[in-house]
Amino acid sequence: MHAAVNRYASRGHKQARLIDRVDPVVYSNNSVAGPLAPEFIEEYIENGFVLIEGLFTDEEIHALQQETVRLRDDPETRLMQETITEPGNGEVRSVFMVHANNTLFRRLAADPRLAGIAQYILNDDVYIHQSRLNYKPGFRGKEFYWHADFETWHMEDGMPAMRALSISVTLTENLACNGPLMLIPGSHMEYAVCPGVTPDAHYKQSLKKQGYGIPDDLCLGNLVARHGIALATGKPGTVVIFDCNTMHGSGSNITPYPRSNVFYVYNAISNRLETPISGQPPRPEYIAGRKDIEIIPRRIPS
Amino acid sequence: MHAAVNRYASRGHKQARLIDRVDPVVYSNNSVAGPLAPEFIEEYIENGFVLIEGLFTDEEIHALQQETVRLRDDPETRLMQETITEPGNGEVRSVFMVHANNTLFRRLAADPRLAGIAQYILNDDVYIHQSRLNYKPGFRGKEFYWHADFETWHMEDGMPAMRALSISVTLTENLACNGPLMLIPGSHMEYAVCPGVTPDAHYKQSLKKQGYGIPDDLCLGNLVARHGIALATGKPGTVVIFDCNTMHGSGSNITPYPRSNVFYVYNAISNRLETPISGQPPRPEYIAGRKDIEIIPRRIPS
Repeated sequence: MHAAVNRYASRGHKQARLIDRVDPVVYSNNSVAGPLAPEFIEEYIENGFVLIEGLFTDEEIHALQQETVRLRDDPETRLMQETITEPGNGEVRSVFMVHANNTLFRRLAADPRLAGIAQYILNDDVYIHQSRLNYKPGFRGKEFYWHADFETWHMEDGMPAMRALSISVTLTENLACNGPLMLIPGSHMEYAVCPGVTPDAHYKQSLKKQGYGIPDDLCLGNLVARHGIALATGKPGTVVIFDCNTMHGSGSNITPYPRSNVFYVYNAISNRLETPISGQPPRPEYIAGRKDIEIIPRRIPS
Repeated sequence: MHAAVNRYASRGHKQARLIDRVDPVVYSNNSVAGPLAPEFIEEYIENGFVLIEGLFTDEEIHALQQETVRLRDDPETRLMQETITEPGNGEVRSVFMVHANNTLFRRLAADPRLAGIAQYILNDDVYIHQSRLNYKPGFRGKEFYWHADFETWHMEDGMPAMRALSISVTLTENLACNGPLMLIPGSHMEYAVCPGVTPDAHYKQSLKKQGYGIPDDLCLGNLVARHGIALATGKPGTVVIFDCNTMHGSGSNITPYPRSNVFYVYNAISNRLETPISGQPPRPEYIAGRKDIEIIPRRIPS
């Protein structure tokens, strides 16, 4: 294990600024037929994300919803280290590592309708870098400030290149009013060098409240001035695919409508984690797969 | 000064629940021609609020915007007791009593295009119960939890009846993404009895962070299940008129777009404040006009 090449230096008292991305967005040659229609691929290249409806049947989504509620209400869930609770009231906020610990969500991670998209875009075998069920409860759902995941994965996990993506399947309706995912289209082409240094065991707080790996006001203001903000609204079962460097966040949710989803981060096997750039010990396996990774077999959707 | 008739008891360990409104919504007889088109009045009666565009010219709105920025950046503003700052970073969040302390906003409060609407709906002479400039700064704009103003005005200020309304003029664009005002249409017909007791000098914290006078989850869930949620989005200069008992709130604003507006609460002169129901000393004059009130002359819009 050697240190990741630091093409995207950040923190450590670096000046906050935007630098150009040097990695491709879609790694497959576009002459190869993939699992996504060409217009979706074009949209993904242009915006750094794409929303797709109708990939799953209503029955499939219903089964995922039921399992999500069951997990939340299982008293054992609260005791797991993979479970993050809301500061203050102790409600379950996220359950990590569902791709390994839960039968249904393990099967979904390997489903060719999702994994096939990741394999195509990354043009490699893939594994799950991180997975989680997010419960954004109604009434008191907290905001999640703007960030591009890659900055943290690079600095804190030693992910070498922008050759990873997230796929989220929404499990409740995402409305404009219940704190939907907000994305800055086109932001994936610029890397926001973030201010500050990384404190030890930062992940323990950062999963509840962020302090590092967030862009400064000027960088964020510039990105939004150039590209605007898109809301990922849609009915349950909407699939959101976004690049590891797309700037995103979400506001608070004071409505009674919860906003739940399941999240998988697919990483290319050639982009496996190296020594964290920060020089600190690696984050735990349930946040960043390093040793116990499993290559997802390539399958044709049935 | 005697205690307000307590038709709408709340707090003091009362059971949280929804009770029927006993007061009218529009006090004028609808055979009388008013300053608002009949369809706006019908909408107001039905929903408890109405949005109107085009009441002011672009030049008028521009002048208000300039004055808003000037006030925020004036170092003296921060020193006034009428100024509320954001917890944490000290940014100016609201400036109260602009209807008395600022020439331009004093003129706007008495403008027949706004005051005339209040005089018609309340069918009485009116005065300003409370006014404020709200700065909802970008990046770190905090949420404001659901509440119906009347509960607090009744309990903490001794306002006898639901014969008051708010008129807000937006000074920035209100988008779905920058924490716009959310309202529950139809909620003005039910009064949410709120749990808890009122601590002394509650207003000192409640202007920064609410703790009392907020509905419980069950009441709020029922209101939203029956009526849904509306977002008050629109370009700068949009006028939002809403009843004193309409349930409203707003989520956080992490976008770079600030969301500013000026707010006037018009109260009927026949509905002047009495002794607060809570039995506590009245809130200060800049939050609830009691002694230094001034009747707004009735004028025909020019």
